[in-house]
Amino acid sequence: MKITLLLILSGLFACTLYAQQDLFARNPIISPDINDDHTVTFRLLGPDAAKVTITGSWMPSKGFTTEHREMEKGDDGVWTYTTEILEPELYRYSFSVDGVRTIDPANAHTIRDVGTISNIFLIEGGVADLYQVQDVPHGTVAFRWYDSPGNDKIRRLTVYIPAGYEQSDTRYPVLYLLHGIGGDEEAWIGSGRAVQILDNLIARGKASPIIVVMPNGNVAQKAAPGKSSEGLVVPTFSLPNTMDGKFEETFIDIMNFVEGNYRTINSKEGRAIAGLSMGGYHTAHISRYYANTFDYIGLFSAAINVSPEGLPPATVYQNLEENFLKQKENGYKLYWIAVGVDDIPNLYKGIQDYRKQLDDLGLKYEYKDTDGGHTWENWRKYLTEFVPLLFKS
Amino acid sequence: MKITLLLILSGLFACTLYAQQDLFARNPIISPDINDDHTVTFRLLGPDAAKVTITGSWMPSKGFTTEHREMEKGDDGVWTYTTEILEPELYRYSFSVDGVRTIDPANAHTIRDVGTISNIFLIEGGVADLYQVQDVPHGTVAFRWYDSPGNDKIRRLTVYIPAGYEQSDTRYPVLYLLHGIGGDEEAWIGSGRAVQILDNLIARGKASPIIVVMPNGNVAQKAAPGKSSEGLVVPTFSLPNTMDGKFEETFIDIMNFVEGNYRTINSKEGRAIAGLSMGGYHTAHISRYYANTFDYIGLFSAAINVSPEGLPPATVYQNLEENFLKQKENGYKLYWIAVGVDDIPNLYKGIQDYRKQLDDLGLKYEYKDTDGGHTWENWRKYLTEFVPLLFKS
Repeated sequence: MKITLLLILSGLFACTLYAQQDLFARNPIISPDINDDHTVTFRLLGPDAAKVTITGSWMPSKGFTTEHREMEKGDDGVWTYTTEILEPELYRYSFSVDGVRTIDPANAHTIRDVGTISNIFLIEGGVADLYQVQDVPHGTVAFRWYDSPGNDKIRRLTVYIPAGYEQSDTRYPVLYLLHGIGGDEEAWIGSGRAVQILDNLIARGKASPIIVVMPNGNVAQKAAPGKSSEGLVVPTFSLPNTMDGKFEETFIDIMNFVEGNYRTINSKEGRAIAGLSMGGYHTAHISRYYANTFDYIGLFSAAINVSPEGLPPATVYQNLEENFLKQKENGYKLYWIAVGVDDIPNLYKGIQDYRKQLDDLGLKYEYKDTDGGHTWENWRKYLTEFVPLLFKS
Repeated sequence: MKITLLLILSGLFACTLYAQQDLFARNPIISPDINDDHTVTFRLLGPDAAKVTITGSWMPSKGFTTEHREMEKGDDGVWTYTTEILEPELYRYSFSVDGVRTIDPANAHTIRDVGTISNIFLIEGGVADLYQVQDVPHGTVAFRWYDSPGNDKIRRLTVYIPAGYEQSDTRYPVLYLLHGIGGDEEAWIGSGRAVQILDNLIARGKASPIIVVMPNGNVAQKAAPGKSSEGLVVPTFSLPNTMDGKFEETFIDIMNFVEGNYRTINSKEGRAIAGLSMGGYHTAHISRYYANTFDYIGLFSAAINVSPEGLPPATVYQNLEENFLKQKENGYKLYWIAVGVDDIPNLYKGIQDYRKQLDDLGLKYEYKDTDGGHTWENWRKYLTEFVPLLFKS
């Protein structure tokens, strides 16, 4: 009965193979293979390769290099490597085949971080369950373009709208969530797993339903590499105007767009801002510059700097002390600072200097030293800890 | 003046390197390098590799294999290959290093097609200008989850909302755009470049502003691989229930969601449906099964089949002739069929048989034989030709 259909389908397969062979060149290899004991076995078919190594985000780093491990070749031409027991986490890895970095051809799941594509896998349990898509109500993720008159550009941002928004008439609070240097409006929904974290925290009743706005903090760009009329350009860390005040001073364009297009609570009680690294720097300055605008402020491994002579001449960086005192006087509900003790000493010290400045001026904050360094592992974790503290009236 | 900031930033870079070395392992190599004459040079640094080849979507295919070309090793350890002059198009390619398929580490732009990650590049000009992000008003792309009671699942779909929708009060027509076997709700916005095509056609005045809904046609899935609670599963062509009538019979759930959540024209004048390959099969059956519902129907390289004994026993496939005659009697404005002459003979013949059936029953259609086979090159092109024909009153 189904014979004709099957014939056509088998023909279709053959045809697809014919025209698009590489789509079908699927590895019969299972990799990564997550074992019951939470060790992970990687496999790569490479009978003609002379040396294959693996590097992954669970391996130690030293100096400028993350360690790698040699994989072992079997008689069947399959190279294998099995890890030690891994903690629950979202991990990144890549192979090197005779000296050339490559992704795992058996794993279709990748993340782009700045200009590098890596494979990912996830070990369930603990905080990693928040990074996984669960059977809970899902928010909407949208890529939208907003007018930024301050930059004379139409620019792209990512918005997370919590489940229930579309069926509701109420107003929602907003978290503005900023990326680090080299990142863009796709960083927090990629490596940051912000969508899964928000869906899961809200479903567990740990967080209020909130809108999360993830803009592009590089004002020289209209959008992430490949998503603007610049074409399929090479992503870079070295963009102009990332920390010269322009993003902070034109942040009003983003807020105007968001508050004009969504049912938002348009007062400080309904606004939070947080960012990682460069985004923490942006957060510190934006939350001070826009007087009486944000009740919740989060600095994740912030690349902050308190000495005025170290700052560019933009208006946003002037009269720091005076504006800090205004921020104090206006009041806020939460100023949350976290950094890993293994972060770069200069950056770690910058944050301690910043704390001293806040102390001297009498601005209250919560501070948290954590394990680890300048990593997405920390930033994801900080997000899971920060969001539950927001919008508790 | 900027010294402190620069110190912190250089520290930050060092730190990032320390913790995330692979992010920085950026190739100083430029690849692909699109030359002025539209030849393209590829480069790969691999001093220790013994053999490097490249395969790309511009190369001929034969039997089950797309051809490849050997790259040549320079004294500097850089392997290079330069193509002939390429026509304007979006191309896909990958390398093989000592027998292992790999992406180009110098190119951050990739596409996932079913389970395979390939690099992409674009040669400007002609129809390819429609595939590129241009400086025109941009629509919104959103990933949303809808309730499908017919499948007892919450399922994910992609929606394109044209620029101007949010600022307007008017109702918009909708195109439902369906993927092929192995695809999902991300296929048309990935390989299909549907977002760029729509933005550009609308900006040029060639198409009406329309909403485009790209659902997941695999009812066994809630969402694309990696986007549901199934986790980071291996994408596969072999899903159950893809062509057994279930998708067609539960399509009403998608329409209910769309028409309940957007300002749509809720009559046949405002509805179009089109799909590629399996999606063309779905389109043919849905447009007939839902009486008097669609005025515009597009079959792109449809994996269609006219013999009732070849069809599963689902209701949607019963009384074909009677329901075709109803479709004819109710009327429609456009029934558009296109297929490449190099498509798989079985599939090509299925379409000719289908045409004969339409002819015999007196259903009018436009038909187009094109160059090429069962490829995204054709499906993108068909979309650019089909969309301008829609919603012309």
